[in-house]
Amino acid sequence: MSAAPVTGAGALVPAEVLRARAYLLRTVEPPNRDLTILVGRYGPVEAADRLRRGAVPDGLLRAAAARRTNDLAEADLAAAAAAGARLLVPEDPEWPAWPFSALAVAESRDHAPPVALWARGPGNAAALAERSVTIVGSRAATRYGLQTAAEFGSVLAERGVTIVSGAAFGIDAAAHRGALSVGGPTVAVLACGPDRVYPAAHEVLIERIAATGLVLSEYPPGTVPGRLRFLVRNRLLAAYGNGCVVVEAGARSGTRRTASDTEALRRPLMAVPGPITSAMSVGCHELVRTRRAELVGRPEDVLDTVGRLGIDLATPPQGERRPTDAVGAEARAVHDALHARSARSPAQLGEAAGLPPDAVRAALTELEDHGLAEYHQGLWQRPARRRGA
Amino acid sequence: MSAAPVTGAGALVPAEVLRARAYLLRTVEPPNRDLTILVGRYGPVEAADRLRRGAVPDGLLRAAAARRTNDLAEADLAAAAAAGARLLVPEDPEWPAWPFSALAVAESRDHAPPVALWARGPGNAAALAERSVTIVGSRAATRYGLQTAAEFGSVLAERGVTIVSGAAFGIDAAAHRGALSVGGPTVAVLACGPDRVYPAAHEVLIERIAATGLVLSEYPPGTVPGRLRFLVRNRLLAAYGNGCVVVEAGARSGTRRTASDTEALRRPLMAVPGPITSAMSVGCHELVRTRRAELVGRPEDVLDTVGRLGIDLATPPQGERRPTDAVGAEARAVHDALHARSARSPAQLGEAAGLPPDAVRAALTELEDHGLAEYHQGLWQRPARRRGA
Repeated sequence: MSAAPVTGAGALVPAEVLRARAYLLRTVEPPNRDLTILVGRYGPVEAADRLRRGAVPDGLLRAAAARRTNDLAEADLAAAAAAGARLLVPEDPEWPAWPFSALAVAESRDHAPPVALWARGPGNAAALAERSVTIVGSRAATRYGLQTAAEFGSVLAERGVTIVSGAAFGIDAAAHRGALSVGGPTVAVLACGPDRVYPAAHEVLIERIAATGLVLSEYPPGTVPGRLRFLVRNRLLAAYGNGCVVVEAGARSGTRRTASDTEALRRPLMAVPGPITSAMSVGCHELVRTRRAELVGRPEDVLDTVGRLGIDLATPPQGERRPTDAVGAEARAVHDALHARSARSPAQLGEAAGLPPDAVRAALTELEDHGLAEYHQGLWQRPARRRGA
Repeated sequence: MSAAPVTGAGALVPAEVLRARAYLLRTVEPPNRDLTILVGRYGPVEAADRLRRGAVPDGLLRAAAARRTNDLAEADLAAAAAAGARLLVPEDPEWPAWPFSALAVAESRDHAPPVALWARGPGNAAALAERSVTIVGSRAATRYGLQTAAEFGSVLAERGVTIVSGAAFGIDAAAHRGALSVGGPTVAVLACGPDRVYPAAHEVLIERIAATGLVLSEYPPGTVPGRLRFLVRNRLLAAYGNGCVVVEAGARSGTRRTASDTEALRRPLMAVPGPITSAMSVGCHELVRTRRAELVGRPEDVLDTVGRLGIDLATPPQGERRPTDAVGAEARAVHDALHARSARSPAQLGEAAGLPPDAVRAALTELEDHGLAEYHQGLWQRPARRRGA
């Protein structure tokens, strides 16, 4: 059986690109910054060729050693298609380029962007990411935590915000269910292959998400999740949402990784408080107390926090190159903090972007040179979009 | 009956000073910044004489018009003595000069320091203030709030921290009771005369506080509390503690005033989170969310927060002039932020004192000139106390 690869708008993407990225996805366990660099330099097709031939740097060669010569791309595309999944690639207009740009500029090797993503569901990955919030928390959640996650999920989804989570027991599932309960958008990012569900007990939940929203994964068909893959997956949860809300977390919760990923990607991190007598709120309180997370007591607080940092920004037109491709990482961070409809001071931008004053000044000059920032009476904003269009 | 004024260490204070301050306390409704200025300029005895004669600025004259010519000082001292209360005055070694210095330098007219305080109980007001935390919150507290206030009160009191509150229903009473339950120090500041208790239902509680700790008030014998007096009293709660913890507060809680007083006096403000479903935690969450208060989830967090800002400082030897009397308000604020046992950077001091860098530099120079700050490798601290003593 040689099923044609199922893609969404991906009909525009050459089949060789899909095959190359499917090969890379299986061959090099993510995340791998060397692979990002290779693909960035040669494009996916030549990068895959080079990897197959062994013409890549030593580190990458070692990382790919076990799987390099066994090209399962066609089989993976076919197996995914059989499971109703398509391969999303950066060349596809549906690729969530804007959210993942944070992974591209992140400095840690742990935050390399995905080479591609397997996707199931009618949702458009780029459009769903535009107004989105990641909600995570403890698997061993309390009734209070479950109710809170469901409430945040439903109220935010009602307002058109995509609820992003990991489909795990506890908080994750409650957040997804909250969104589904109001017919709202929700996206699950899994740590297994697109033909699997995990946890198995959530098969119905995950199928409902796939039926209306989107189920994403960067692991090839057949992959089972493992501890490392959950950790690796968490960077995608952190990157895909415009901000991340921790609903319940114990003192040593696995949620800590998603929280630190969110910080590393300079997305707003939020935490819901709870009774100080609840062990499941200790992690949330610690995040707030140490000023890593902002306290959110109502769904509206999430809109307020995330809105300030970009939820009301229009996503760049899909399928075009990003306008900020030509500027440096610091300029991109400042651009991220610029608003289209209101002007901000360099001090505000520095605070939002986490940059010192001189870096902000340099970034603003660079952005202005590229027509990406406009100056009005001491304040800066994005130039009006579609001017004259 | 002409009872001799009952004072603690106040035997050292001339009777005419006690009489003068008792007169001023009854004659001018606190707070009154003009009265502070008058007493600062002429001393209490001449200030009282001038007020009696009407030789004071118009504003003060108007404020004192109703009571100026009716000197009840002797009667008040006698009535207070009959109720077991003494008059604490700034000339007394027991006067909590250090905590009240925040009122002296505060800019708002609402934060004028008390002219004197009526006191009942064996506690030494200055010594009890040294390591102290104010705990306040809603009168309509939930069971969760009451348990939390009692736990914070008892755990902190066990560690020798004085629990300061207003003896009101709800959070106040629970905090006092927590301290009493472990035989720990506690201070109530009331908004009525020293011969009264309010609320009446807390007579037993207030008597227990007076039996072991201290009950303070700036209102003359016979005074009943009123809405304005509760608000005015709150500045004393804010000033007396090294920091203030809000345990529960509704969206429009009266606790807001104590919170804003705490901020105005640059004391650390803390808030205990609770379930987001509880209306009584909304005010606490808002304080944390807006970064006015630091979240405290455990009594240890209070020690951590307050300790950073001065709880581990020794109080200046009682009865001496304060060493910072010779320097300006900003230098005093920076001195407040200096530690004796660890050095801090100018940036840390600026943050703690709420001053910009150039003001911090000027203040440090001034403090160094007066031997009140020492410089070591870019960091500043207080000079070692009792050097060579």
